[in-house]
Amino acid sequence: MESGFEEKEFLACCGSTAFAREMAAVAPFASFEQAVEAARYIWFNKVDVNGWLEAFAAHPQIGDTKSENQKSETSKQWSKGEQSTALATATDSTLQELLVWNSLYSRKFGYVFLICASGRSTPEILAELKKRFPNRPIVEFEIAAQEQMKITELRLAKLFTAKDKSPSVGREY
Amino acid sequence: MESGFEEKEFLACCGSTAFAREMAAVAPFASFEQAVEAARYIWFNKVDVNGWLEAFAAHPQIGDTKSENQKSETSKQWSKGEQSTALATATDSTLQELLVWNSLYSRKFGYVFLICASGRSTPEILAELKKRFPNRPIVEFEIAAQEQMKITELRLAKLFTAKDKSPSVGREY
Repeated sequence: MESGFEEKEFLACCGSTAFAREMAAVAPFASFEQAVEAARYIWFNKVDVNGWLEAFAAHPQIGDTKSENQKSETSKQWSKGEQSTALATATDSTLQELLVWNSLYSRKFGYVFLICASGRSTPEILAELKKRFPNRPIVEFEIAAQEQMKITELRLAKLFTAKDKSPSVGREY
Repeated sequence: MESGFEEKEFLACCGSTAFAREMAAVAPFASFEQAVEAARYIWFNKVDVNGWLEAFAAHPQIGDTKSENQKSETSKQWSKGEQSTALATATDSTLQELLVWNSLYSRKFGYVFLICASGRSTPEILAELKKRFPNRPIVEFEIAAQEQMKITELRLAKLFTAKDKSPSVGREY
């Protein structure tokens, strides 16, 4: 099967079961670009707001790479990698501040602060959190969904890369 | 207490517990207009997306006034009144069509089709449902929230009217 992935692999890219099911239904993809196009269409047009919340709930709090909240080992490892710049630039006091603001954010919006952390330092992430915090819930909800899409694209790229390098490793069919 | 209402009365206006709690916290209101202003602020700025879904879930499907889905007897009676024009103009076939489209809508968006039905005929409601159906979930989510706000305003007006006419009836304090 050309670029065929399993549902659970898509679920590691984005924790919405509807997203993973729809992606698996339209797979295989001729290219990475085609997969991203399908993912964008599905995420913004077919996954309902409950699905967005489900995907958000699959993420650890930013700065918390030890969380057991994640659905898969793959997703956990990817989160850790995505936050490597943030972790390298974090001090005890910025991490503490991030913890406080994360908690304020979750209390206001009902889900964890989502940001495509790849390449971003902890001060940058903190500044972004403070900037987004005053948003109305519906506005913030869409921004969080856009950040989820960026994370999904990075993770799809990893899936395709892993497949190109070793097409038979870790595949069960 | 001037225009003071209980939390459960606000909950009959809008089925979000956060909305009802916040309204009760800022009550009493000097006027109906002040209550509406507070309600708008709370609904659009302070109630999170889970609260919106909670409020949507407190409504019966449009056309279904017998539903046991509603939190209070007051809310149930109000739904019935709000849908009186729709019911008076409904035929078996338009009601059947509404049922089918309601079901398609719930499957796509994850909650019931919400519309401020007051004064609207069944064909008008059906036309509106079909027009909104192609919307992206996030777009439709905000429209539904705006319709909920219209319903909330009508119900707040009923609360104030009932209070003016018979200030001590049905009050427990």
